[in-house]
Amino acid sequence: MPAQIINGKKISEEIKQEVKKQAEALYKETGIVPGLAFILVGDNPASKVYVTMKGKACEELGFYSITLKLPAETTEEELLQKIQNLNSDPKIHGILVQLPLPSHINEQKILQAIDPIKDVDGFHPVNVGKLVIGLETYLPCTPAGIQELLKRSGINPSGKHVVVLGRSNIVGKPIANILLQKKEWANATVTICHTGTKDISYFTKQADILIVAMGKPEFVKGDMIKPGAVVIDVGVNRVDDPSSEKGYKLVGDVHFESAYEVASAITPVPGGVGPMTIAMLMKNTLQAAINQIAVKQLSN
Amino acid sequence: MPAQIINGKKISEEIKQEVKKQAEALYKETGIVPGLAFILVGDNPASKVYVTMKGKACEELGFYSITLKLPAETTEEELLQKIQNLNSDPKIHGILVQLPLPSHINEQKILQAIDPIKDVDGFHPVNVGKLVIGLETYLPCTPAGIQELLKRSGINPSGKHVVVLGRSNIVGKPIANILLQKKEWANATVTICHTGTKDISYFTKQADILIVAMGKPEFVKGDMIKPGAVVIDVGVNRVDDPSSEKGYKLVGDVHFESAYEVASAITPVPGGVGPMTIAMLMKNTLQAAINQIAVKQLSN
Repeated sequence: MPAQIINGKKISEEIKQEVKKQAEALYKETGIVPGLAFILVGDNPASKVYVTMKGKACEELGFYSITLKLPAETTEEELLQKIQNLNSDPKIHGILVQLPLPSHINEQKILQAIDPIKDVDGFHPVNVGKLVIGLETYLPCTPAGIQELLKRSGINPSGKHVVVLGRSNIVGKPIANILLQKKEWANATVTICHTGTKDISYFTKQADILIVAMGKPEFVKGDMIKPGAVVIDVGVNRVDDPSSEKGYKLVGDVHFESAYEVASAITPVPGGVGPMTIAMLMKNTLQAAINQIAVKQLSN
Repeated sequence: MPAQIINGKKISEEIKQEVKKQAEALYKETGIVPGLAFILVGDNPASKVYVTMKGKACEELGFYSITLKLPAETTEEELLQKIQNLNSDPKIHGILVQLPLPSHINEQKILQAIDPIKDVDGFHPVNVGKLVIGLETYLPCTPAGIQELLKRSGINPSGKHVVVLGRSNIVGKPIANILLQKKEWANATVTICHTGTKDISYFTKQADILIVAMGKPEFVKGDMIKPGAVVIDVGVNRVDDPSSEKGYKLVGDVHFESAYEVASAITPVPGGVGPMTIAMLMKNTLQAAINQIAVKQLSN
């Protein structure tokens, strides 16, 4: 039986509608609109597209947003100053520095300069640490989106063997640490594979839930998947496609056609994990606004 | 062939001697002696023993140390004040709050009050996050000790399948996150099992390196271990033993006799991981002194 297709587009729309309603209620109660600042350094075309999409989501949900477009030659010092300004700007509840940054800027130094309460990407070490310890924090958007996809598809990772391919700080490590927690919609036995893993299919074949975030187009084929497994494809790769108008198409890290025949459920690319990332960013920004209102009330 | 016994006692002595020499060199150069403050709240007998042992290690290495013994009824506010005092005490480079704390005190609040540069236990969320991201930080002492045991026994986890039993914040989660890093003496494929894992032996039998930190006396038997695997036993459990003078004996989470016949190398209990924890604490404290000297020089 071919797999259920997990519709990330539809689920992300549901979440955004929920967040929009909650933001409206917050506004009625407090007069405050969640505000998100984007910082875009240089001319990376993919980064521009991402920031535009996130900005549109803000508009859609009635959030306040600003985008600082800085030239590629911006110094680290200048960027730090911009972040300091945003840290103390009461209209801004979330700060998102679009990665990657130009190579002359120390990415970690920049991420660590963001006030953790405004770190809606969940990349500040203190928020990463809280995630691992199991404390309340902003979960990084893509892994949070994966957990939410599972939840809203009724797929409970508890007691399951989750195999994660990839150990990036943005996806692999946080999703592994989220799903191993003794919490609801987690509590999985988790294996993390990566470029140092000798026989990847030995592990993929064991997965009840396989999460693939490697950045290798169509790497995981159907014969690497246990029949009935759930497959979450985080990859977004451009590959040449002379038959398409643009000359390319987007594919995931999973070979969809063959995986679809074996899996019980699978996320498509595009329309799977991708849209969830933005929905979770909106959720984190609303939460950041709520947190900052609470802090203000406590200090009054 | 029975297993090589990994002598944690001997290896930890070597490390302490190295740290001692480095501390002497630091003193000659700067006139500064590494200083460690212990905070002990209440009368937990095990906690008292641990603090005494750690204090003795300080003496042995010529470190300065103080122990604040506070009554069980100490308030959270009072404890926070003590920590603030130690944070600003230039003679103290490391602060160790012996856990567990009495239940009326919020453990996380206390750990987060320690200045991260003095957090030689590596429990502050910002240091946990740095560990996960792969940045320089103080590694928690027990998992750091495990990695060092492997290193000094010539057992390289790179490319191996490491299976960790237990997901505590003190051992299981950090050792998993340390060994999956793309670094030397790491780079392992890591699986984390715990109370939510359905068939533990399915996983233990796959391990090239099995790290057991469950707190269940002699839970892992020889028939759960792959022949030739390396077994690291983090458990320390008191079990009744009428034949001994004290009426009890210490055993690990691994059934040593049967595991010894199957494994290629194994840590004993006691004398395996235990002494390494203290050695790594001394190493972290020396590093903390070095870091604080560097910060002072930078700010002058």
